[in-house]
Amino acid sequence: MADLGTRLGEIVGAEHVSSGDAVAEDYTHDETLTAEPARPAHVVRPADAEQVAAILALAAETGTPVTARGSGTGLSGAAVPRADGVLVSFERMNRVLEIDTENHVAVVQPGVTLAELEERTKAEGLVYPVYPGELSSSLGGNVGTNAGGMRAVKYGVTRHHVLGLQAVLPTGEVIRTGGRYVKASTGYDLTQLIVGSEGTLALVTEAVLKLQPRMSHQATVLAPFPDLATVARAVPRVVGSGIGPLILEYIDALTMGAITHTAQLQLGVPDEIRDTAQAYLVVMLENNATERLDQDVEAVGTLLGELGSLDTYVLPGPAARKLIDAREKAFFTAKGAGADDIIDTVLPRAALPEFFSAVMEIAQGNQTLVVGCGHAGDGNVHLAVFQKDPEVRHKVLHELFATGMRLGGAISGEHGIGHEKKRHFLELEDPNKVALMRRIKQAFDPTGILNPGVLFD
Amino acid sequence: MADLGTRLGEIVGAEHVSSGDAVAEDYTHDETLTAEPARPAHVVRPADAEQVAAILALAAETGTPVTARGSGTGLSGAAVPRADGVLVSFERMNRVLEIDTENHVAVVQPGVTLAELEERTKAEGLVYPVYPGELSSSLGGNVGTNAGGMRAVKYGVTRHHVLGLQAVLPTGEVIRTGGRYVKASTGYDLTQLIVGSEGTLALVTEAVLKLQPRMSHQATVLAPFPDLATVARAVPRVVGSGIGPLILEYIDALTMGAITHTAQLQLGVPDEIRDTAQAYLVVMLENNATERLDQDVEAVGTLLGELGSLDTYVLPGPAARKLIDAREKAFFTAKGAGADDIIDTVLPRAALPEFFSAVMEIAQGNQTLVVGCGHAGDGNVHLAVFQKDPEVRHKVLHELFATGMRLGGAISGEHGIGHEKKRHFLELEDPNKVALMRRIKQAFDPTGILNPGVLFD
Repeated sequence: MADLGTRLGEIVGAEHVSSGDAVAEDYTHDETLTAEPARPAHVVRPADAEQVAAILALAAETGTPVTARGSGTGLSGAAVPRADGVLVSFERMNRVLEIDTENHVAVVQPGVTLAELEERTKAEGLVYPVYPGELSSSLGGNVGTNAGGMRAVKYGVTRHHVLGLQAVLPTGEVIRTGGRYVKASTGYDLTQLIVGSEGTLALVTEAVLKLQPRMSHQATVLAPFPDLATVARAVPRVVGSGIGPLILEYIDALTMGAITHTAQLQLGVPDEIRDTAQAYLVVMLENNATERLDQDVEAVGTLLGELGSLDTYVLPGPAARKLIDAREKAFFTAKGAGADDIIDTVLPRAALPEFFSAVMEIAQGNQTLVVGCGHAGDGNVHLAVFQKDPEVRHKVLHELFATGMRLGGAISGEHGIGHEKKRHFLELEDPNKVALMRRIKQAFDPTGILNPGVLFD
Repeated sequence: MADLGTRLGEIVGAEHVSSGDAVAEDYTHDETLTAEPARPAHVVRPADAEQVAAILALAAETGTPVTARGSGTGLSGAAVPRADGVLVSFERMNRVLEIDTENHVAVVQPGVTLAELEERTKAEGLVYPVYPGELSSSLGGNVGTNAGGMRAVKYGVTRHHVLGLQAVLPTGEVIRTGGRYVKASTGYDLTQLIVGSEGTLALVTEAVLKLQPRMSHQATVLAPFPDLATVARAVPRVVGSGIGPLILEYIDALTMGAITHTAQLQLGVPDEIRDTAQAYLVVMLENNATERLDQDVEAVGTLLGELGSLDTYVLPGPAARKLIDAREKAFFTAKGAGADDIIDTVLPRAALPEFFSAVMEIAQGNQTLVVGCGHAGDGNVHLAVFQKDPEVRHKVLHELFATGMRLGGAISGEHGIGHEKKRHFLELEDPNKVALMRRIKQAFDPTGILNPGVLFD
């Protein structure tokens, strides 16, 4: 019997397999701050679903762990391979197969990046509206983690835009789920089960994505507030107004200082306001008609004033783009500032005030700096935790997650559990649900080859 | 050991159990045209999740089949009980537990009807926008079948509005899934797996439903077309315009004649147009600002003219409501006219022209009358099939479903598979997917007590 590397080469061509020391460093990690890198025994780069099926059949036969990888921009460690395993990199399966302008769908391979999809849809007057910060991320990775981002308050998350999949089961079959339609009541929704499963149930080889007509005009309102509590109380009012913001972000003063400094960004907020403001709301609106957009900007400005903002500023286009861009890169700003971990807890948006005051208490009680920003309209809070001691840090994260769950939330809104939040997940989640999830895992993957160690031990 | 009826009475109180001949006729059927009624051994009416858990534990212990029932308005036979089984009727669990105006969610028990939820949300300026025809249907049933309806083209279907559940597993545990938030990436999405599972995986005892701000103004445009093909080609253009219709329905001339006759409805379409029109589009728009609504109506009218409509009519409010109401009741009109079966195939909306011409061929080739209407914007086609011979009818349905699937569609868009479409489902669906669904069923329901015979044999 030939060794595993040779047999993988027979499937995909020897030039598309790397083994041992020939595996490039980039394959050993994702962007998670805390994950231990691992060099997989082999990296394999398949060209199509049939090759993926053959790889999984071989892995099942040999009991080899398999981890899928798109662009490696994940934040939960779910794309970090096992040292004894095979990393399936989708870098060659990177084609936009179709932009279907009649049904408003894109059909993409998993290695396509958000940046490329944006370019292709823009040319047709359509948009894939899901907007996680990192545009170099791949659609396969987005599907695996159910990526969210800033525009979820208007358009929802990846889950709401995946209409169908081609996927390879760990038992080797290639299946197609869903299709170019929104309605279906024909058996269990396998599409939705695979979305967000972090590579533990099946490998996605094609995705049918719902597109939207692209709006032509956008405007951005920046509103400084005296404190975070006032921001938090304002959020449900802005959502409830019916104006339908595209983006509704909060940024605390420390984070705003850091990202504007890093981006060398002037927002035109006078010094006396900036010195008073402890938090900011960023509201982006979109419309096809400039007249309607202007009316909505006016309405939002008035509303924010009533809700306690110190002032409101309509940002000029370039400044708005820079601010959103800088906000997207807040993770890298936090990383650059020496953050030891980041979390993305989600909770009911009306629970934000209580959560923020609990965060302050937890931070102070553990001598830890916790700062952040987040998708306020969705109750999805991104916090950077500065605490070198791993035990204290675990305690801080545990308390933050437990508080979020006590307020009706969940550990992760969009990054996923992966390896890195697994201990918290298994400590805090209802054991009956974890047991059910394990049985579902077993139903898909009886030999346990797909991403072992992710979600479950 | 006491008999099953006595033991059920110990759980819910003897007055909430009916057995044998004391079981009312209404419990023996749903609204499906073809299903054989069946009188269950017992009907049990629990008051809360704990009682449901005890019922399921007892059923698992005794190997008793369990079928859940809301209002009994289903169209797939999924609420038709087994003669040897227990029917769990949720009629006592009929409370709206909360309208949360901050997070925009409703928390409901499964027996709440759409009509009641509409009343409760209206009082708060919010709306649960999913709008299947039958407002006496229960939310539990809507969740079980992933009900769709007319407004899906704008708002999506039940699945897109169920944020969380309380559910009882057939193994007896009560779990909570999801919550009052849209984003989550924390383990497998059990919520979405249970939605649309037709009572085969778990019994839903509470649902957290996403609400939307209620728009204050609506307008309805009726456009007669020379033929169905022109309507079908117009549909993707109307969706692609970005106007965002709330409703986009097609109605063929025969069906329009029948429903306007039944409802005694005058639409103000001149005779010479009505005599020429072979199909109609109904476009409903909504907005908070009358000025914007008027502009959108104007734009839709112009667009429909360009797309080949014979004329366009803005219907006065009462006529519009009557037409939508009559359209909702098209099922009962078809039933009253002697239809032998109805189907609700879904396909990519751009495939409608090809599907419609295939339907004509299939109908003519089998000496069968097939007429209909449907949610054109979603490619969800409702057809009434007039054919007394069950074998010919099965052949017609099989050909219709196979054609829909060949064009990229699925058997049912919103009614479900139940008992009644199961033979087609098992004949036409990929056996690898059916096998995977069976393993998922096994993961939830190892003793097979929940709705045996639905989806699978």
